Amino acid sequence: MELLSYIKSHEQQHLEELKDFLRIPSVSTKAEYKPDLQRAAQWVADKLRASGMDLVEIIPTKGHPIVYGESLHAPGKPTILFYGHYDVQPAEPLHLWTSPAFEPSVRDGKLFGRGTADDKGQVHIHLKALESLFQSSGSLPINVKIMIEGEEEIGSANLYEFVRSQKKKLAADALVVSDTSMLARGVPSITYGLRGLDYFQIEITGPDKDLHSGVFGGAVPNPITILCELVAQLHDKNGRVAIPGFYDQVDKIPSAERKALNALPWSVKEFKKTVGAPAYSGEKGFTIVEQLWTRPTLELNGIWGGYTAEGSKTVIPSQAFAKFSCRLVPHQDTARIARLVEAHIRRLLPKSVKCNFAVHSTGKPWVAPFSHPYFAAARQSLQQGFGKKAVFIREGGSIPLVTQVHDVFKIPCILIGFGLPDENAHAPDEHIQLENYFGGIRSIALFYRQLASL
Amino acid sequence: MELLSYIKSHEQQHLEELKDFLRIPSVSTKAEYKPDLQRAAQWVADKLRASGMDLVEIIPTKGHPIVYGESLHAPGKPTILFYGHYDVQPAEPLHLWTSPAFEPSVRDGKLFGRGTADDKGQVHIHLKALESLFQSSGSLPINVKIMIEGEEEIGSANLYEFVRSQKKKLAADALVVSDTSMLARGVPSITYGLRGLDYFQIEITGPDKDLHSGVFGGAVPNPITILCELVAQLHDKNGRVAIPGFYDQVDKIPSAERKALNALPWSVKEFKKTVGAPAYSGEKGFTIVEQLWTRPTLELNGIWGGYTAEGSKTVIPSQAFAKFSCRLVPHQDTARIARLVEAHIRRLLPKSVKCNFAVHSTGKPWVAPFSHPYFAAARQSLQQGFGKKAVFIREGGSIPLVTQVHDVFKIPCILIGFGLPDENAHAPDEHIQLENYFGGIRSIALFYRQLASL
Repeated sequence: MELLSYIKSHEQQHLEELKDFLRIPSVSTKAEYKPDLQRAAQWVADKLRASGMDLVEIIPTKGHPIVYGESLHAPGKPTILFYGHYDVQPAEPLHLWTSPAFEPSVRDGKLFGRGTADDKGQVHIHLKALESLFQSSGSLPINVKIMIEGEEEIGSANLYEFVRSQKKKLAADALVVSDTSMLARGVPSITYGLRGLDYFQIEITGPDKDLHSGVFGGAVPNPITILCELVAQLHDKNGRVAIPGFYDQVDKIPSAERKALNALPWSVKEFKKTVGAPAYSGEKGFTIVEQLWTRPTLELNGIWGGYTAEGSKTVIPSQAFAKFSCRLVPHQDTARIARLVEAHIRRLLPKSVKCNFAVHSTGKPWVAPFSHPYFAAARQSLQQGFGKKAVFIREGGSIPLVTQVHDVFKIPCILIGFGLPDENAHAPDEHIQLENYFGGIRSIALFYRQLASL
Repeated sequence: MELLSYIKSHEQQHLEELKDFLRIPSVSTKAEYKPDLQRAAQWVADKLRASGMDLVEIIPTKGHPIVYGESLHAPGKPTILFYGHYDVQPAEPLHLWTSPAFEPSVRDGKLFGRGTADDKGQVHIHLKALESLFQSSGSLPINVKIMIEGEEEIGSANLYEFVRSQKKKLAADALVVSDTSMLARGVPSITYGLRGLDYFQIEITGPDKDLHSGVFGGAVPNPITILCELVAQLHDKNGRVAIPGFYDQVDKIPSAERKALNALPWSVKEFKKTVGAPAYSGEKGFTIVEQLWTRPTLELNGIWGGYTAEGSKTVIPSQAFAKFSCRLVPHQDTARIARLVEAHIRRLLPKSVKCNFAVHSTGKPWVAPFSHPYFAAARQSLQQGFGKKAVFIREGGSIPLVTQVHDVFKIPCILIGFGLPDENAHAPDEHIQLENYFGGIRSIALFYRQLASL
């Protein structure tokens, strides 16, 4: 059967299979889900076999396993390394989901569930594109290596080790990743830049026990207040990160690129509609697109301390906690930034509290040129698969593996995203547009076929 | 049998009965405990009958019931109104309790459990003092009205209404309360001043949903950061509350009183040992005793927002929350302070977020002279019951009912506390010293007997 006919006739089957994948709650950050991560890895391995991989391995790590598959039966044709992840973010806050996070559900042409956009849905696009190529023609047109990890949402530490130690096994002509977003609905996109990440947690301890805020209030250090006073000193009035040296290694964006980014078919109005905040205020002197893609950040991701349940409790807690993270841009060094952040906090810290500072994960930023012919092939396949003009964009998120592969193998890294910025990745009601899921399968199948002719 | 012999011979029985009271998890702030509050009220009513009350009522309110009992068979003798509460603070954080909060347990001469000090243990002291007087002599030496409520920890709103509407029923020559602390171990104490309370909650909303901190970070308002920046502007560098007008109505303490308070047998070293913080910094220009008893405060009691579980989640939350409260001193007006706090916060609020501001509860501060002969009787009974010198102190906590009764009935309010400041009221491992529980029963029985001779 012809490739696109095959895909069209299997849409319902593909969708049902994706739902099975989404039902596995593979939340990598929580120890209790470890068996589910294992189950998700097994699920991926099974589907890799169905996609024509004749070597499939579930590789144990110190954390969650890496699933590896390969098919190398196209001599003289390009070899691509495809990377994705089967782990997902936690689903909390659960009460904000319209339908349960791990019971996928279709509404209004969208598939809802944790992992639909980030990244199970996008991994599944590649699995089904390969399967469609394999089933419709009896073989794969290119050589394929597939590496699907289970620790992307917690920093990919074991994957880096795997890549470092398996250079020969993983050698390829290009890296392909689908873990990003399209610029907007109807605008297929190839991403050529990502921000890096440093994720921190601090724990402030004042009194060595919780205290009655009447009996003790006014004379003891309150760790919540002190934590807030610290956090308040992390930005200045212009929305800049107030940590000395934070911007030292930030590259200036060439004006041509700045112009190109700001000229993309991207709507501030749509962005604001997606976010739904009363007003906006990022770093002064930069457009929103520049703030999102080209500037480093420091964002609070969580805070807690004291009594947080119903009603009132008059307590001064012993401890208060915060999680926060910096998005980084070329050529900020992740270790240097972590040192600067910790030093700044320790400098600000009053003597009345102790502070424990931890780095949860780090990932380098990445920006690369897109002049290799593979990029043109990707753009053309997207335009054919979607019937729309495709664009080159940067993105605010982080995929540290991309930087590593780029550094180690010096090959083109082609990031083709099928999510949308308003699809609630990392938030309740995560979803993917079915048109992009199906368009993704078509485009990727066409892309892999087209690579065979280069 | 002679009074003190009776008490001595019943110590074990009294203690076991108190444990039954403590096993009822009467946490008033949480709706799920409503049946336990009802059960605790019934328990108190039963014990009032055993203490010689011949009229006992469980009076329903919009919230938890008030238990009322009276015995008016001592014509020409004083009538006291005793007030206490059977509700308790939440037990969280549960994992910090050495033995479970609602399974009372004796260790090292102390009885551990939620409510031991605040206030079930102290209410029980009065019930057993009265029972001992009644059982040892066949009648009560004075007239007694007893009012035990179930909403002290959530602001006593329905009790105020009850007092307002039942002036005749509650008329008495003095109010007696045991819901405070002794200055230190071996120092029986009568409290003549309490701070008032305003308890607030704020909710900051930025984006209308949780967002991916990579995709959106740098260009959207982060409600955690903004909440912290607000909190950081609630105090100045001298530890003073930075809300305009906050100190306008604060009375200056007469220098004689200031001197007397600072001369009390109170140890800064013991205080610091109890708190266990690395260093201390309250409002500049005041001693710790002054900070605790005579100065108003603003203390954060809880904060939360974003991802607070294990590991990392790269989210910008839609909302962040804080609970905080002000302790107030004469003659700060609770409603005025609430208005000033809200106005200050709204003035500081950036346009990029919405803020919901709620007042959970309020209570007026109270300070009164202690020249009435009842105070001398109380002091003498304490000295006899404990074999130690008794002192007059102020306290940092709040018992709004005292102010109300003082305002409505213009009678002496005698606050005799048997807790200790390091007994973890409102915190894990709350406890009461058994020597103070038993000494309390002796002293209160002697006090009530002595009142009959005045």
